[in-house]
Amino acid sequence: MSHLDTLISVNSAVATTTHGWRANFLQHLVDLALPVPMSVALSFDTVHRIAEEKFSDIEEILESFPVEALVCIRPSPQDSAWGGPSAILSIGMNDEHCKRLMELTGEEFSADLYSRFIQNYALQVDKIDTDLFSVSKGTAGVREALQIYQEESGTAFPQLRKEQVFGALRAMAQAWESTSARLLREAKGAPSESKLGLIIQEMISYPSGGEFGNGTIQLADPETGHAKVAGNYCRYHLDQSAISLTSTNMPVERNGCGLSLEECVPKAFAQLHEYTERVRAKLQEETQLTFQIQGDDIYLLDGRPAVRSAQAAVRIAVQLAQARVISREDAIMRIEPNLFNELLHRQVAPDAVRDVLGSGIAASPGAAVGQIVFSSAAAQASAARGEPCILVRRETSPEDIRGMHAAAAVLTERGGVTSHAAVIGRGMGLPCVVGASRMTFRFDDEKIIAEDGRILHQNDVITIDGSSGQVLAGEPRLLEAFLDDAFKTLMAWADDARDIEIRANADTPEDARTASNFESQGIGLCRTEHMFFDSSRLTVMREMIFAETAAGRAAVLARLLPMQRDDFVKLFQIMEGRPVCIRLFDPPLHEFLPTTRTGQRELSNALDIPLHEIQRRVTEMAEYNPMLGLRGVRLGVTVPEIYEMQAQAILEATFRAHNNGAHIVPEIMIPLVSARREVELIKNRIDAVQNKLCQEHDFDFNYRLGVMVETPRAALQAGEFANLVEFLSFGTNDLTQMTYGLSRDDAGRFMSTYVQQGVFREDPFRTLDTEGVGELLRLGVKRALNQKPNLTLSICGEHGGNPESIAFCRGIGIHYVSCSPFRVPVARICAAQLAISERWVPTDVAERAV
Amino acid sequence: MSHLDTLISVNSAVATTTHGWRANFLQHLVDLALPVPMSVALSFDTVHRIAEEKFSDIEEILESFPVEALVCIRPSPQDSAWGGPSAILSIGMNDEHCKRLMELTGEEFSADLYSRFIQNYALQVDKIDTDLFSVSKGTAGVREALQIYQEESGTAFPQLRKEQVFGALRAMAQAWESTSARLLREAKGAPSESKLGLIIQEMISYPSGGEFGNGTIQLADPETGHAKVAGNYCRYHLDQSAISLTSTNMPVERNGCGLSLEECVPKAFAQLHEYTERVRAKLQEETQLTFQIQGDDIYLLDGRPAVRSAQAAVRIAVQLAQARVISREDAIMRIEPNLFNELLHRQVAPDAVRDVLGSGIAASPGAAVGQIVFSSAAAQASAARGEPCILVRRETSPEDIRGMHAAAAVLTERGGVTSHAAVIGRGMGLPCVVGASRMTFRFDDEKIIAEDGRILHQNDVITIDGSSGQVLAGEPRLLEAFLDDAFKTLMAWADDARDIEIRANADTPEDARTASNFESQGIGLCRTEHMFFDSSRLTVMREMIFAETAAGRAAVLARLLPMQRDDFVKLFQIMEGRPVCIRLFDPPLHEFLPTTRTGQRELSNALDIPLHEIQRRVTEMAEYNPMLGLRGVRLGVTVPEIYEMQAQAILEATFRAHNNGAHIVPEIMIPLVSARREVELIKNRIDAVQNKLCQEHDFDFNYRLGVMVETPRAALQAGEFANLVEFLSFGTNDLTQMTYGLSRDDAGRFMSTYVQQGVFREDPFRTLDTEGVGELLRLGVKRALNQKPNLTLSICGEHGGNPESIAFCRGIGIHYVSCSPFRVPVARICAAQLAISERWVPTDVAERAV
Repeated sequence: MSHLDTLISVNSAVATTTHGWRANFLQHLVDLALPVPMSVALSFDTVHRIAEEKFSDIEEILESFPVEALVCIRPSPQDSAWGGPSAILSIGMNDEHCKRLMELTGEEFSADLYSRFIQNYALQVDKIDTDLFSVSKGTAGVREALQIYQEESGTAFPQLRKEQVFGALRAMAQAWESTSARLLREAKGAPSESKLGLIIQEMISYPSGGEFGNGTIQLADPETGHAKVAGNYCRYHLDQSAISLTSTNMPVERNGCGLSLEECVPKAFAQLHEYTERVRAKLQEETQLTFQIQGDDIYLLDGRPAVRSAQAAVRIAVQLAQARVISREDAIMRIEPNLFNELLHRQVAPDAVRDVLGSGIAASPGAAVGQIVFSSAAAQASAARGEPCILVRRETSPEDIRGMHAAAAVLTERGGVTSHAAVIGRGMGLPCVVGASRMTFRFDDEKIIAEDGRILHQNDVITIDGSSGQVLAGEPRLLEAFLDDAFKTLMAWADDARDIEIRANADTPEDARTASNFESQGIGLCRTEHMFFDSSRLTVMREMIFAETAAGRAAVLARLLPMQRDDFVKLFQIMEGRPVCIRLFDPPLHEFLPTTRTGQRELSNALDIPLHEIQRRVTEMAEYNPMLGLRGVRLGVTVPEIYEMQAQAILEATFRAHNNGAHIVPEIMIPLVSARREVELIKNRIDAVQNKLCQEHDFDFNYRLGVMVETPRAALQAGEFANLVEFLSFGTNDLTQMTYGLSRDDAGRFMSTYVQQGVFREDPFRTLDTEGVGELLRLGVKRALNQKPNLTLSICGEHGGNPESIAFCRGIGIHYVSCSPFRVPVARICAAQLAISERWVPTDVAERAV
Repeated sequence: MSHLDTLISVNSAVATTTHGWRANFLQHLVDLALPVPMSVALSFDTVHRIAEEKFSDIEEILESFPVEALVCIRPSPQDSAWGGPSAILSIGMNDEHCKRLMELTGEEFSADLYSRFIQNYALQVDKIDTDLFSVSKGTAGVREALQIYQEESGTAFPQLRKEQVFGALRAMAQAWESTSARLLREAKGAPSESKLGLIIQEMISYPSGGEFGNGTIQLADPETGHAKVAGNYCRYHLDQSAISLTSTNMPVERNGCGLSLEECVPKAFAQLHEYTERVRAKLQEETQLTFQIQGDDIYLLDGRPAVRSAQAAVRIAVQLAQARVISREDAIMRIEPNLFNELLHRQVAPDAVRDVLGSGIAASPGAAVGQIVFSSAAAQASAARGEPCILVRRETSPEDIRGMHAAAAVLTERGGVTSHAAVIGRGMGLPCVVGASRMTFRFDDEKIIAEDGRILHQNDVITIDGSSGQVLAGEPRLLEAFLDDAFKTLMAWADDARDIEIRANADTPEDARTASNFESQGIGLCRTEHMFFDSSRLTVMREMIFAETAAGRAAVLARLLPMQRDDFVKLFQIMEGRPVCIRLFDPPLHEFLPTTRTGQRELSNALDIPLHEIQRRVTEMAEYNPMLGLRGVRLGVTVPEIYEMQAQAILEATFRAHNNGAHIVPEIMIPLVSARREVELIKNRIDAVQNKLCQEHDFDFNYRLGVMVETPRAALQAGEFANLVEFLSFGTNDLTQMTYGLSRDDAGRFMSTYVQQGVFREDPFRTLDTEGVGELLRLGVKRALNQKPNLTLSICGEHGGNPESIAFCRGIGIHYVSCSPFRVPVARICAAQLAISERWVPTDVAERAV
């Protein structure tokens, strides 16, 4: 036996880094003096050599096992999450062994074991399709299986255990190195060069009289995480008269029917309970053990981290910390932040049957059921009738906001992770699948053709799974979102640990309330334009657009002023003194004009302007590239009345707050800046509004001015703005679009090809591009702080909720990140993990198996 | 007299940097012992104090002038091109002086002189509208003028010369410091802190018996620059009987009618000729002198660089160098590169009457006359009839290329300096006015409403002045473009001097021929997509777009291959071995689809695909922001057949050239790159095509691969690409769009506001933004050279022809710039000036006045 392959025994050197997590786990069991059957761990190097057909030491290893014993081979990659080939059991089974076993257990049990082994071996070692095998039982089934094996593989089924082991080892080693397996595990976070270890373990296959069976046990409820013995036991019963072994499935824990391991074999149950507790203490983790009982003996065959839902994962971590098994920091570090996407939204139950109609991009997590509607108007009508609906659109636009509010979920034909539907959906916590372009959308006929050709009509019920990107037929069972005390405890610990602030992007009082519920430390981005799509305001906005003169525009805007002021009064109230960063009007004005003929006719009537005049204006205002057009500060400079009204609304709301004793300092942010002079012009105008108000009310109050850095030029010139403002906030959505020259609304067409071919490592709208966009952030931060060391720096945009992006931003000295309200918990835990990982030493230095 | 204010006399210290160009010029005349009337130069500082109403030394200065003498005050800024307030003449004129002069010259002359002085003084000093004054003649006119002055200003007209001088000085000094004057001169290139000097000069106002008159003289033809005495003379004739002075205008030089200075006063003519020669020799420049004759005395009052057209400017510089008055380098340095915009295109004659219908952005220089047409089809029909036409469009698109080829000029309602019409127009040398949005375009009715309300219809004749941006009614006289021997000589000298290469952007064989005529050193950018808009190819392109599979696309593209190959064969032939850089297909495919219903119906017939299918595809392919969409290398990666066909066409053309003995190394450029992997993928595919061809023909030839750096990310990551390629070319058009987040097609709406308000110093699409975009260029160049020091670096795009931008690019180490063929001469002279100015010492170190 090479020094790299180790008989697992007390004091042997079986590390996850050389033999994989499973080998290390078994080693821990052995170290605890727990009863593990004879096991040998093959190292990564050995397995790699086996893949190249070099079996030098294997024969020697096999000699350590009893000649008659069956063995199993299980995979042992470095991380249990990385999968690996399926285990192969019952190796060593052959005609003779089958016959001998038959005498002990009867024909059915023995033949069934042998048949299953042949089929499994055929599949995994020789890639023979299992559908070829019949379902015949007993010795007839075995004969048939042997014959089919011979026909398909061209050789007789191997009878020597050694030969079977070689075949199984080779197949498993080579399967690990196949391209598809590599891609699959890379998707789960494995590095491309990750290796496989294998475990050869003796099997306990014979009933020896008395109790015989196997099962699993863990000490936490898999669904809730509460302390509870959970698991199941398969008990074999030998009918001595007929020599026939039959099985019964039962839970491990007492279930009140008398049929449980605890009641049937109380001694073994108590023993297993104690074993599991010992393992938990040693490994500092809730563990699921796989055991076998043979007479009075108990064997621990295998194990893994206890099975758990997202909710259970949080409670298990908190309970371990509260029981002082691990530290609070360890508890935080154990939570994969993206688990919260499950926790904070309804989900399709894991056991539900999924009847998939098609799939797109998982743009906003959570699941919802509803009737198909094809317009925002229909969505509102449906909501009015109290019927949940799914809004289906080619792509959503600001005109669909009300429809989205009325819908239970959104499905779009086009768009990517940062398309309008996706961004708004995430903001509202509305499940959303976008870019489902493999389904065919016939908006004229109000039909959707599923990927398999089924046709869906208006009012058909479907389910949108925004977590997986799937569109499902009918109503699978959903699990509710669940934020319990364990979640709150963990969050409080995370807040103690982290060293950057987390704010939320919130455009409306409802958003602000969600943000506040998730304990956001403020609003980092309030997009004021969304306030103008409300039906009562939209017509006024349009009237403003059609006003001929500055005075005319100002007069119309004066009517919007009190509404806008009330928006801010509400936001300030909800946020209770926490900072609120308000971005001035950003989108191009033409987004507010109706694009349909009906809409234009309505507007013509409402404003008493000839239809052709409306159409002329719509055509005239159209832009080739609206993303790069007359919007943001460019509107602020050329149509100053809008920003003046907004400044007045913000400052009047501030004044009211002061009168009510809340000494708020509002933050005003200028969008789409590319030159210093833009900031100067806007600053002067806001200052003028402020001075006028202060004089009128004989009162002093301040505001903080900031620039939204979202053009590459603004990032490069950040030093130029620094002295004019109190803060800079990097708008990484637009910055990504401009740095790549890539429209988020159009990128969906080729993004998947690009990511698949490795052109982009990841979709840069999902995970911040640390090389290109990140370089602009680094330069911007450096230059800005160089000019004004006490400047506040932040990022707002979709990346604010992405763990890797938060890590990057914290690394370059950003003070806070702002993200969708529903991402706030993710960001909070993520920030805590970053702070902890810099100083972290796990509670116990013993290498953890899982 | 302060030491700063100087009586201009031999050896006094009157420098342009302290007293302005005019003072320095007069000082030179005095130094040459030429007869200059008594003149005092007020320094910049004195004038600035006068603007603040501090007149300390002026009284003392006035005492140097004879008590009875009239004086004039002329502006003297540092550069003669910067303008300044108008001169004020005849200061000292008053009731008494008028009466005395009347005795010598009769009532009309004297009263007219006084009236004009009052009106001019009223206007310039007291801002009184001259329309208030009547046209009465004689002493009645004077009385009326004095009365109106009193009514409007509230005080009597000042009678003291001292008081008048103070008023005039104050008015001129303050006029210089007004905001509008500052903006005006800054537009002419003056720094914002530029100062004004003033000259007080004694006037020779009295006929003394014998000859009396004044005029100008220069020794070069203002229109052609050829050696020739030119100027005019206004001769006063005193009718002793009636005591009445009358005037006759005549040319200075002999004109064959006997009525010229040369014939009437030969001695004075000869003297003036000799004076002008002496001044030319001293100042090393053709000079226009302003003189006065009084009896036998000649006075030189003033002067300036000789008046000259663009053509004359070139010839004058060349002649001065050929006569060894100045060096060749001096000759090059004297040419303002933008003069060539006049030289290389037809122009509206300077003396033509301009009946302006409206104006827009001067997008492509030159003038053309033609009948209005509203579609490309009409333009082609018009061209077929041999009738010049002006193509009027809301905006041009690639579909208009053929119409543009047929038109004499283009006028568009929308767009900016880098809109489609502008870029293509400049490339073709086609006069072009874009963004004429103050005129009203009614495309439905085929009408244009001029800014003054006049209505223009199809076939009305208009003139487009692409140099000024004006749209003129009818047919003003045009001057032809004129490239003479002097131009060619100057260009040859420039080529000797410069140290960066100049290439042209050329998309078609015609462009390439123009480029070759202008002695471009190669093609720096051949945009291959323009080759596909030819009618015979467009349908094939569309068929390709509708092909369902890769194989289908490849089959269609195979039909385009021979045409595309022939394009390159021709380009290689025309360029005769000079490098040709071919950019692979760049625009989004939807640009090739018809947007009108008619066009779609035609396509439906041509391809035998149902109309609704065509429409569905058009809708499906539409993009929100085409600039940031599926184009460039993104098409190359996702629809590889196009680039493969192009690579094959380029390399087969190369192979043919080799067979003909021309060992060409084609340059292939990948557009819109943002990630290294994009380059790798395309490089691998081109290499495969190359290997296949080399094997087929048993022949070796190379190509040079390059990346077009036009996304900010590509600039930041330039080091990543460097090792994969032979060259990088910065596409500054798109790079500017993305760095600012500014669409060139949409920026027209607010660019003028932005430049007027000083938000942007200049339109960044016209002059490279050296701070933002320039920083990306600097970073890109540095990082690329760091990885591969022998990489070739260039810029292509509109900035390639802009002098300031060329200076910047040369400064950061760019090897060549590529610009529109018609900008090549500008770029050549500009590059020469940059190289010269680094080592330049003017021929004579004497400070030049002009």
